[in-house]
Amino acid sequence: MATVGKPLSTTQRTTLRRGREKGRVDRSELYEVLRAGFICHLGVLVDGAPMVVPTGYGFDEETLYLHGSVASRSLQAGDTPACVTVTVVDGLVLARSVFEHSVNYRSAMIYGPLRRVTDPDEKLHGLHLLTEHLAPGQWDHARRPNQKELAATVLLTLPLTEASVKMRSGPPDDADSADAVPGRWAGELPLLTTWGTPVPDPALPADTPLPPHIAARRGQVTAARP
Amino acid sequence: MATVGKPLSTTQRTTLRRGREKGRVDRSELYEVLRAGFICHLGVLVDGAPMVVPTGYGFDEETLYLHGSVASRSLQAGDTPACVTVTVVDGLVLARSVFEHSVNYRSAMIYGPLRRVTDPDEKLHGLHLLTEHLAPGQWDHARRPNQKELAATVLLTLPLTEASVKMRSGPPDDADSADAVPGRWAGELPLLTTWGTPVPDPALPADTPLPPHIAARRGQVTAARP
Repeated sequence: MATVGKPLSTTQRTTLRRGREKGRVDRSELYEVLRAGFICHLGVLVDGAPMVVPTGYGFDEETLYLHGSVASRSLQAGDTPACVTVTVVDGLVLARSVFEHSVNYRSAMIYGPLRRVTDPDEKLHGLHLLTEHLAPGQWDHARRPNQKELAATVLLTLPLTEASVKMRSGPPDDADSADAVPGRWAGELPLLTTWGTPVPDPALPADTPLPPHIAARRGQVTAARP
Repeated sequence: MATVGKPLSTTQRTTLRRGREKGRVDRSELYEVLRAGFICHLGVLVDGAPMVVPTGYGFDEETLYLHGSVASRSLQAGDTPACVTVTVVDGLVLARSVFEHSVNYRSAMIYGPLRRVTDPDEKLHGLHLLTEHLAPGQWDHARRPNQKELAATVLLTLPLTEASVKMRSGPPDDADSADAVPGRWAGELPLLTTWGTPVPDPALPADTPLPPHIAARRGQVTAARP
């Protein structure tokens, strides 16, 4: 697609004023964060005040698709200014001073006009991406949406054009400070997000086989660094 | 404190219109989500458009304290309308139809005026809470903030007054539907967030002992349901 490889747009709000060294402008790093993330936080305006709702998403190279029912009260007709943030926490940075404590993370903030999808084909495309991001394999395993369900689903889009990507990794920054005294430990405490053991619906017949695409996720880290 | 046990305030924006069955009004459930969460997403207005930034937090019974440097560009003098959302994802709900797929989660959305802390004692109190929420034990282990660092730290507060708490748990909701066909598996896939093996700063002397309060977190689930 036309936008692949294009750097992310540089606008006033995506130009980092703090922590500049952590900023990324490579589009592939935006995709990395979106792949590693599970849900996003959608910020919209409601009666002039911000509202932040967690919701599921999927994406292709140009567009972020969001499940919008949770934000339905905030959706006006037409385009709505929005900010969607995806954050992956990789660990805790335990420094020698409280002040230097930090978090290792990867995040993307995407700004733009939020649009409600009305075209049924586009809605099906977006729901496919969203389902396969959250629950890979389920689009083929479960029953797909019918016309009525499609109509009842609120799907939103945000262009992947104006975005700010930030990452931090590695040890604390105060190794050379006066706080590096003998015996005082410092380092990282990784945070691991893994899929657990599938729990069958109690209503299932006892001999219902667990599909391989679900069984295979057990023990997998959801947000591994590439 | 005076507010303990008081139900959360009911305003138009905290009255759930969708998924009503998931809403909670008990203040103790707000604390449960805040305890289980690790970071929050802070929504503020910048030049009339929403901005959502991930940041650390701590809390006492009446107040949420936020690390504000990441949002510094958004902070005007005086109170700023804000929404802070804390989300804990507990798992994926794999239903029989794509439409019924869902996420098991616990979330809190807290609305209110964001205030910048200026009083040094209040700042120290808030930073203590924030540090002990993210990295319990480090307030006593690491060097505490000095006057200069305190002055350089942007700490924000939001009253724990107007909040909306939502939770979902359990199996999918379509056990009684026509989609419950023999052989089609459905259930939950839990998402586990655990602390990994501490990684010493490469700059540390090799014989630096790992403090027990950090060693003890290894393998611990960060967001266990009570």
